[in-house]
Amino acid sequence: MKKLLLVFILFSFFRSGHAQSDSAVIRSLFNAALTNHESYEQLRYLCKNIGGRICGSPEAAAAVEWAAQTLNAFGADTVWKQEMMVRNWKRGEAEYAFANSRVMGKAELTVCALGGSVGTGKQGVMAEVLMVKSMDELRKMPPSKVKGKIVFFNRAADPTNIYTFASYGGAADQRVNGAIEAARMGGIAALVRSVTLQNHDYAHTGVMRYDTAVTAVPALAISPADAGMLEEWLQIDPLLKVFLRNNSVELPEVPSHNVIAEIRGSRSPDTVIVIGAHLDAWDNGEGAHDDGVGVVQVMEVLRLFKSLNIKLNFTLRVVEFMDEEVAQRGAAKYAEYAANSGEFHLAAIETDRGGFSPRGFSFDAGEKVSAALEKWKPLLDDYGLHLFYRGGSGVDIAPLKKLGVPLLALVPDSQRYFDYQHAPTDRFEAVSQREMQLGAASIAAMVFLIDKYGW
Amino acid sequence: MKKLLLVFILFSFFRSGHAQSDSAVIRSLFNAALTNHESYEQLRYLCKNIGGRICGSPEAAAAVEWAAQTLNAFGADTVWKQEMMVRNWKRGEAEYAFANSRVMGKAELTVCALGGSVGTGKQGVMAEVLMVKSMDELRKMPPSKVKGKIVFFNRAADPTNIYTFASYGGAADQRVNGAIEAARMGGIAALVRSVTLQNHDYAHTGVMRYDTAVTAVPALAISPADAGMLEEWLQIDPLLKVFLRNNSVELPEVPSHNVIAEIRGSRSPDTVIVIGAHLDAWDNGEGAHDDGVGVVQVMEVLRLFKSLNIKLNFTLRVVEFMDEEVAQRGAAKYAEYAANSGEFHLAAIETDRGGFSPRGFSFDAGEKVSAALEKWKPLLDDYGLHLFYRGGSGVDIAPLKKLGVPLLALVPDSQRYFDYQHAPTDRFEAVSQREMQLGAASIAAMVFLIDKYGW
Repeated sequence: MKKLLLVFILFSFFRSGHAQSDSAVIRSLFNAALTNHESYEQLRYLCKNIGGRICGSPEAAAAVEWAAQTLNAFGADTVWKQEMMVRNWKRGEAEYAFANSRVMGKAELTVCALGGSVGTGKQGVMAEVLMVKSMDELRKMPPSKVKGKIVFFNRAADPTNIYTFASYGGAADQRVNGAIEAARMGGIAALVRSVTLQNHDYAHTGVMRYDTAVTAVPALAISPADAGMLEEWLQIDPLLKVFLRNNSVELPEVPSHNVIAEIRGSRSPDTVIVIGAHLDAWDNGEGAHDDGVGVVQVMEVLRLFKSLNIKLNFTLRVVEFMDEEVAQRGAAKYAEYAANSGEFHLAAIETDRGGFSPRGFSFDAGEKVSAALEKWKPLLDDYGLHLFYRGGSGVDIAPLKKLGVPLLALVPDSQRYFDYQHAPTDRFEAVSQREMQLGAASIAAMVFLIDKYGW
Repeated sequence: MKKLLLVFILFSFFRSGHAQSDSAVIRSLFNAALTNHESYEQLRYLCKNIGGRICGSPEAAAAVEWAAQTLNAFGADTVWKQEMMVRNWKRGEAEYAFANSRVMGKAELTVCALGGSVGTGKQGVMAEVLMVKSMDELRKMPPSKVKGKIVFFNRAADPTNIYTFASYGGAADQRVNGAIEAARMGGIAALVRSVTLQNHDYAHTGVMRYDTAVTAVPALAISPADAGMLEEWLQIDPLLKVFLRNNSVELPEVPSHNVIAEIRGSRSPDTVIVIGAHLDAWDNGEGAHDDGVGVVQVMEVLRLFKSLNIKLNFTLRVVEFMDEEVAQRGAAKYAEYAANSGEFHLAAIETDRGGFSPRGFSFDAGEKVSAALEKWKPLLDDYGLHLFYRGGSGVDIAPLKKLGVPLLALVPDSQRYFDYQHAPTDRFEAVSQREMQLGAASIAAMVFLIDKYGW
């Protein structure tokens, strides 16, 4: 009887021990993240001591060195750099713009060159303005109406989407392709309403493209407040002129680096879980939410496993990607490596949607992944992680899809992201330490579950 | 055959029309809230032109007038004021405090009087400091160790809770009862670590109590940063002294008001759905998140139904409560009215947890309410409302519980709330328009469902 009781007790112990352990481990990851201030201080350093760090800049190079040193200091088993060439666009001296109307007078406009734009030259350009709200509206214009004008793309992002990335997606075409379409119709420059849901007086930059088939004309973003004012002025005085000056140049490509660090798996080190974010950030802010937060979150995940001494079966690899903003050369480089490394990539998780309270994960993967996430939901629910849905991951890990790697992205609350993205408002002070750390712990919990159970 | 087809089409139309209509109405409420900027401008006015407005102050009186005017302008069917007497505590001139140590030198401390505290007199008090981390620790001290000292309550709020109101609840005892326990043991003042999860240099005020059985000693909050410094200094020099000065006084009670506005129900106007927030706010900030946001959210709900011309069966009543912060006289007054009005209160919903992205609703009600919320969940899920749990509502509607009224509270994301609550940081600029408006629309959606289906 005593023996039977012992067996029963042991059985209960192991059963409940096992049942409890996942939630206990996840709890310990969150506790450790919420009591750690190191990660937030790292973000402060990246934002304040390095600052904006677009690829090709000395700041980007400094961020690479800083990331490598920090990951070494965390006790990663290996830290290495992956070299690639990157574009080297420079904003040049501060942009200047104004509207001049015989009726309304003269008003300075808050503008900034879009990433990749050619310059106007020191003399600037001055011309009448054609306002359009869509590409279609522009394409249907008689070319005579467009010729010689500054094309003002003024469609606001739709405020009624609950998930604001949908609003971004619905307005970013003007920024990316505005210069091509303007030039195709004979326009001499593109002036694009900043892609944001705010109505503030900051201009948001972001990448734009040219097409070798048409002239490369300057492309600048205008603050949403000034876009609104310009629209009003144009209604009163359609003949007003706008002056634009930017001194951007594209210099020859330079080498830069992804920074990679890993804790080798104890059971199967050639099976890899990648967690990634991007080191580069636009030069007109501090790159706090985009994507300094992600950079320190993936570092923090590594630190959490090290400091709590949680052994992982598979290799946990932090990839701090270079050049997410311009041409995704870092993403291409890592994917090329992954295709040839002989390793098996079990999953890749990206964090590049800001340091806000986490809501869940999106995934770009098959049924097995979907089923596993469904099973893990109850373990994550207490931490506010309620959204698990099929959707895009992020551009840095997207190229791994063709290798069949299941892709996931941390989904934080999206309401404030576009208040900051690509703007001077993207500063350290805009990040909540707790919200950022909850995101890091959420990724760590996901890594723990994937490592333990696979798909 | 044609007739049959027509019947089939009509049947499909009405069926799908009905099935769609709840989600379409809810979508229209969110769309209208997310495209309205009026409410945010009202919050700006309340914060910037009126500012901190603790009960009894001229600012509180101005807020009452402003609320009544604004609700009238929204086209409410009735707007009226409900009078009650309120306490009239004044902070007096700015507090001043420093620590003086023979070893460490002298350092100014950031402090503020707790709400209701007596003053030290112009000469201030200066004494050695006894630091404790809990009431129990204090109670177990020999009285000789406490006598004549300033008792420094320095237990930090627990950062590991995911829902930060639990952390607040676990630390607020020091603020509320610190002065009583300090005096009972012979202490001459209470110095209380601000109840926040931040580590900044702002002191957070909040109400404190006295017990007529013991001397009323001054009670001040110290910023978390200075609480940390003082703890370090005390480890090095336990004999250091702290100087505290505050000039608070309690003047005779004065009349003040709840502001009430309603849209009368089209079917059964004597059945009432209450939505409430509180007008008063601590004097050391602008009362933005606590609870200016709530004040304009409940106004916005009324505006949404008016502007979308959605007829409600029951009366929608906005109650802007006075005196949530000190003695809840407004709450008592409304409950007294409700008990005698002969109306039936179908539900009361409070919004007093800040203007952050909404997560769901807590409810203090029976099984029918729980079942109805469970049924409505799919309609609200798209808007990020995923939390529906049994829990406390809010102190302004709590007295309605004894009348059997089902109570609900909007639950926004809680991570940043205690960065601002009761502190100079609680400013208009800390509120995101979108997050606040999503909260208003969430309440409107809940009102719509309760009004349509009851429990």
